[in-house]
Amino acid sequence: MLGEIIAIGDELTSGRILNTTSGYAARKLYDAGYTIHAMSTIGDTPKLIGEALLRAITRVDFVIVTGGLGSTDDDLTNEAVSKALNRPTMPNLEILSRIRAHLFSQADAVDSPLEKLAWLPKGADPFNPESKIAGYQLIHDQTLIFFMPGIPSEMKELMSNTVLPRLAAWKAGSRLKTHRRIYKIFNMAESGLNQMINSLNLPEDISIGYYPDFPDVHLSILQRGKAREVSPERFEDACRKVEHLLGSAIYGTDHDDLALVVGKLLEDQSLQLGVAESCTGGLISQRITSIPGSSNYFLGGAVTYSNELKEKILGVSHADLERFGAVSAEVAEAMAHGVLQNTGADVSLSSTGIAGPGGGSPDKPVGTVYLALADKENCQVISCKFSGDRNRIQLITAHTALNMLRLYLIDKS
Amino acid sequence: MLGEIIAIGDELTSGRILNTTSGYAARKLYDAGYTIHAMSTIGDTPKLIGEALLRAITRVDFVIVTGGLGSTDDDLTNEAVSKALNRPTMPNLEILSRIRAHLFSQADAVDSPLEKLAWLPKGADPFNPESKIAGYQLIHDQTLIFFMPGIPSEMKELMSNTVLPRLAAWKAGSRLKTHRRIYKIFNMAESGLNQMINSLNLPEDISIGYYPDFPDVHLSILQRGKAREVSPERFEDACRKVEHLLGSAIYGTDHDDLALVVGKLLEDQSLQLGVAESCTGGLISQRITSIPGSSNYFLGGAVTYSNELKEKILGVSHADLERFGAVSAEVAEAMAHGVLQNTGADVSLSSTGIAGPGGGSPDKPVGTVYLALADKENCQVISCKFSGDRNRIQLITAHTALNMLRLYLIDKS
Repeated sequence: MLGEIIAIGDELTSGRILNTTSGYAARKLYDAGYTIHAMSTIGDTPKLIGEALLRAITRVDFVIVTGGLGSTDDDLTNEAVSKALNRPTMPNLEILSRIRAHLFSQADAVDSPLEKLAWLPKGADPFNPESKIAGYQLIHDQTLIFFMPGIPSEMKELMSNTVLPRLAAWKAGSRLKTHRRIYKIFNMAESGLNQMINSLNLPEDISIGYYPDFPDVHLSILQRGKAREVSPERFEDACRKVEHLLGSAIYGTDHDDLALVVGKLLEDQSLQLGVAESCTGGLISQRITSIPGSSNYFLGGAVTYSNELKEKILGVSHADLERFGAVSAEVAEAMAHGVLQNTGADVSLSSTGIAGPGGGSPDKPVGTVYLALADKENCQVISCKFSGDRNRIQLITAHTALNMLRLYLIDKS
Repeated sequence: MLGEIIAIGDELTSGRILNTTSGYAARKLYDAGYTIHAMSTIGDTPKLIGEALLRAITRVDFVIVTGGLGSTDDDLTNEAVSKALNRPTMPNLEILSRIRAHLFSQADAVDSPLEKLAWLPKGADPFNPESKIAGYQLIHDQTLIFFMPGIPSEMKELMSNTVLPRLAAWKAGSRLKTHRRIYKIFNMAESGLNQMINSLNLPEDISIGYYPDFPDVHLSILQRGKAREVSPERFEDACRKVEHLLGSAIYGTDHDDLALVVGKLLEDQSLQLGVAESCTGGLISQRITSIPGSSNYFLGGAVTYSNELKEKILGVSHADLERFGAVSAEVAEAMAHGVLQNTGADVSLSSTGIAGPGGGSPDKPVGTVYLALADKENCQVISCKFSGDRNRIQLITAHTALNMLRLYLIDKS
């Protein structure tokens, strides 16, 4: 079953508002076994809306339309549908009487713009005439068309509770069976990954996709087809091969977050973490504490931007700061030791570096970063050269620190 | 000048990745005076890509295409363009020799998939053959077509540095004149704001829009029309009235970030900041240090998730923690004092609260937050009840703390 998604609104084509509803609908439909071959966003222009709708009807089995159903002058979807499909608008009596009862209770004028909400193209079948959420379906030339509001919360509710069940009932059995897994990978280039995966010679019905999502690469393994052609065993076998090949370069799947993965490892091993940050300025701690329940394994730490605080709170020696500079392996190590002691943690992370745009030198250009990880016996330090603007350098630094901790915890278990 | 935007990628039509580049391009183009009448998103299917491109060419002056330019097997834009526009692909020698030099230095195989990047449709004019960012322009049937990568950071860079200047040079004078300003407002409901703005009775050619962008509301003031109809004086006058009406409820305009605004105020007044965080877990410090040059006014601070660290690093008294609990006005105040002393700052912020989803009680439900701001003479504490999930509570808490500091600094100056 093929579908198209059409989003309507000048606020979308002028870029004032980011269209999130089409992507949401696409994900829900894809996971339910449908294929979306195009999504369009059209301004509030009836002619263009009509053209897009007619084009979609000729080439797909169903269409999802969002936006333009409200009561203000720039809500033009019903007018466009009426003209394009030659279906005059007429009042839905149930909706009209509900609006009039509401207006009466408010003592508003009788010819309120709200009455516009009751005028629908001929053949429209409203989802919930008694509810406050607009929306209806229409079958035209054997194509099922759903019209929903553009407000994300309303659209999402209708999508789950009304559209997906009705679509499933309409032409049951004609959906594709879908198996999909996303592997999240850090510290590996897309092209190298591509070459490694190609060497596996996976079966032809397994599709592979690579999607950079800074600083990660997402690897998608997909099998999709008619129910009798699709084999869960072949899919699982392909996934096993990928996992075996990439090993710990994969940090998680689907909705995993690196901070969540690290948190689980810490919790499983009953270890407490402390963090001392300079160039990441709180970002490592913020990522750790974005996870519910992180107080079970995160004690806290220090953000020591000034050298004085590195000495005072973390006990970094003045001599080391003078001799090696704040951005050095020695200071990273001293910071990790300092916060380990200070917090009484079992393991600690520290960061020091130059996030830029200022502060670089020929010796230590912007992007120079030292990360340390200490426990009660050892301390490992890595040095990195990152590129990009300040925010990218901070992001990849925090991500690298979390990944360093992940590899340490895997090694330990 | 009319344009269309086409985004390409199965990751978009399957809803795996939210398309943010089309909305970004739309906003940039709208502000530069162009009108986008449709945006499409197409999967990695050469036939559909070609159809969308041909349709756009017949009805607009320029087309922006993003995605599908990479070196992996699912990057099919050049193949689709080649077929649809009947322009065979041929190697761009400059790009090819750069790739070969790179491969040679890496000692990779000669028939590397990277060479694919050099094969472009006939007539393609690459933006920067020497750079790592792909992209080119093509003029077909008097329509100017720009091809850019789908990676948001690369696309944004090309949009500003290459596409907009070239578009402006191509058919100068046929753009609409646009004046737009966005006011960023925190701590005010959209409906109340709407009522206040209506009372101003602004001229009819000034359009007003309200856009929630959690936790802010953005207020857009827009004037757009042919050059001789648009009056900058009337636009500026409307803006002045809005500013006068809303006063310090506006924290910035257009691209201002609250942390940037606060940073400027601190720098102007030569004040140094320290931060002590519990429920925000590093987010306040992270937002402050995301701003270049923040080391001029940010000393650092502590993330004290455990009660022990609140005592040890910040000197919060054990008795207060026992008597009032960690989430209390008294502990917020003690944390702010503690970090002020510890860091030697002129002013400090602290946060303590319950971000959830666990940890709430009938007395102190999830969303209960105390924030304190201390200087050498005084300390103010506010208590808040926020709602939403953990991440929303952390976001609005950090935002409220920064805004508290902003109002304090405005008051002081």
